[in-house]
Amino acid sequence: MAAPTSAAPSWSIAPPSRALEAAIQARIDNKTKPLGALGRLESLALQIALIQQRLDPQLQQPHMLVFAGDHGAAATPGISAYPQAVTAQMVLNFLQGGAAINGFCQQNGLLLQVIDAGVNADLPAHPQLIRAKIAKGTADYSQGPAMSAQQCAQALALGAEQVRRLLPLGCNCIALGEMGIGNSASAALVTQCLTGLPLVDLVGPGTGLQGAALQHKYQRLAQALALHPAAQGDCLQALQAFAGFEMVMLVGACLEAAQQQLLILVDGYIASAAVLAAVKMHSNALAYCVFCHASQEPGHRQLLAHLQVEALLDLQLRLGEGTGAALAYPLVQAAVTFLNSMASFEHAGVSRAI
Amino acid sequence: MAAPTSAAPSWSIAPPSRALEAAIQARIDNKTKPLGALGRLESLALQIALIQQRLDPQLQQPHMLVFAGDHGAAATPGISAYPQAVTAQMVLNFLQGGAAINGFCQQNGLLLQVIDAGVNADLPAHPQLIRAKIAKGTADYSQGPAMSAQQCAQALALGAEQVRRLLPLGCNCIALGEMGIGNSASAALVTQCLTGLPLVDLVGPGTGLQGAALQHKYQRLAQALALHPAAQGDCLQALQAFAGFEMVMLVGACLEAAQQQLLILVDGYIASAAVLAAVKMHSNALAYCVFCHASQEPGHRQLLAHLQVEALLDLQLRLGEGTGAALAYPLVQAAVTFLNSMASFEHAGVSRAI
Repeated sequence: MAAPTSAAPSWSIAPPSRALEAAIQARIDNKTKPLGALGRLESLALQIALIQQRLDPQLQQPHMLVFAGDHGAAATPGISAYPQAVTAQMVLNFLQGGAAINGFCQQNGLLLQVIDAGVNADLPAHPQLIRAKIAKGTADYSQGPAMSAQQCAQALALGAEQVRRLLPLGCNCIALGEMGIGNSASAALVTQCLTGLPLVDLVGPGTGLQGAALQHKYQRLAQALALHPAAQGDCLQALQAFAGFEMVMLVGACLEAAQQQLLILVDGYIASAAVLAAVKMHSNALAYCVFCHASQEPGHRQLLAHLQVEALLDLQLRLGEGTGAALAYPLVQAAVTFLNSMASFEHAGVSRAI
Repeated sequence: MAAPTSAAPSWSIAPPSRALEAAIQARIDNKTKPLGALGRLESLALQIALIQQRLDPQLQQPHMLVFAGDHGAAATPGISAYPQAVTAQMVLNFLQGGAAINGFCQQNGLLLQVIDAGVNADLPAHPQLIRAKIAKGTADYSQGPAMSAQQCAQALALGAEQVRRLLPLGCNCIALGEMGIGNSASAALVTQCLTGLPLVDLVGPGTGLQGAALQHKYQRLAQALALHPAAQGDCLQALQAFAGFEMVMLVGACLEAAQQQLLILVDGYIASAAVLAAVKMHSNALAYCVFCHASQEPGHRQLLAHLQVEALLDLQLRLGEGTGAALAYPLVQAAVTFLNSMASFEHAGVSRAI
């Protein structure tokens, strides 16, 4: 167990300076293509160049951080289609290279690290596993808060630490993923608290609940929500009441990455719920985030709409692990590629529009 | 100039055998993920495995073929925002490595070849340039057919030849791109003839026409359409009346690739209009095609809906050159990656759903 800290860490997050915006946009517009013809890649290129404060941004040492944790509420059936033991089993699968995220990270050049934020098992030492366990799972939010204020503060700090640790490597881009049986339920609860949207629109099948089982999940979550009125509209209270340790570490990682002016690639519903909490704490963090895909989990679209952001991919994914972010990474690279490698009209001797 | 041929080539295209479908689907379903959780990548993996008739498909020597040609109708203003000379200028830009498609192919591991199907310029020899010029541009379809029946047959044969040429390299995946000032107009006309959709829904800004200029483009195309009633519902007549040589070569390349059971990655509106013609000639060709992105050009969505297919990406691209296909290629790779590299539940010791 990591040493406890007493108070929640704090961050000072500045928005990217817009001083270079006109110069970056001119560089984009002068590439040999019709104005705006690369669509979303052009706004993405502008975002990355603004974050890095340079006309020729570079992606260096991109890391995929998959935070894993168990949920007390998932120790009994009804919250997930899979037993709680699958969290630890999938972490072992990550370490053995057998999960989807392994293949996608390897294919696309992302360095994968798995963080044990609170898995309910003793995990073996492994070079890709970072030990940051707060406890062997959270408490059951149907009975009381998922975690104490101290645990929440500790998880925020440990999440931040995972990003700081990468800075000496030259890393300027992190992707945020997660694993935790039951965490689509926590994502729904946290999202409800921080957006005020109806819970019914935020609860989805997760790993595969349907029909009566999905209805049962909703009812359990509605009851849990009523138990924690102080969580409404309050980030720390909402996280303490309902989140997993992996989600709180994601919040800390997001805030630290924004403070350090890194590019942040956000995976699906659970990672986005953590980023929602981060953005509600520090709205300037949003400018550092790229939402990589729109999950098939219905609450995710509501969350993205609330944040007024659009995802890059829409492939009906609902796997988590960071897979959507790993799949979108070549598009992020492509935004940098065109900005740096395309010729200008003058240089290529191409005529402009009549 | 290539030697003329007298009759349109013919193809015999079988659909992929479905004999392995159950075994492939079982392999997908047994991967360590909730059933269906990789969404579109799962149907893509099934499609690729069926095309290759194996449980462990491989993508080998993927080539991006960019066919370039000029359009007689674009020799005078009103059809495009750019002057006709830009076709040749952009081909030179491709050969110098300065276009978007160069960067995206290099980033994603596609081998780029440019085919001079009918550029209105004498182009220099270059290892990436294939000389297959039918003529220095088509005739103006406002005056008569864009090309003769003989030229159309020759372009179909030369398109097929570009695919056959790659087979000894072991290539089993081709991406179809194009360059040709004025060819979004040709795509609209061909699509109208072969779908019966209203022309007004198929004509768009192309490289950037707006307002009165876009209205003028529509009027010119409506007049041209009325000049060629025999093109309605007839693939060869529609191609002869309105297509560019680059488009007809795309048709031939698509049909040859389908006959050879290659995976075919289709770029945007113009490439899709060519594939539409190929599919209307041989409906079995469709099963070999992946539609890589939905263009911002409004007619493309109509065309995709007509074919009852969905694109992988939706990034508001409207550049052509094959860029959307090059950008989608890592997703195609990812479908193969997960099928081949992910562990099964049994192998990884992961519990199944309760």
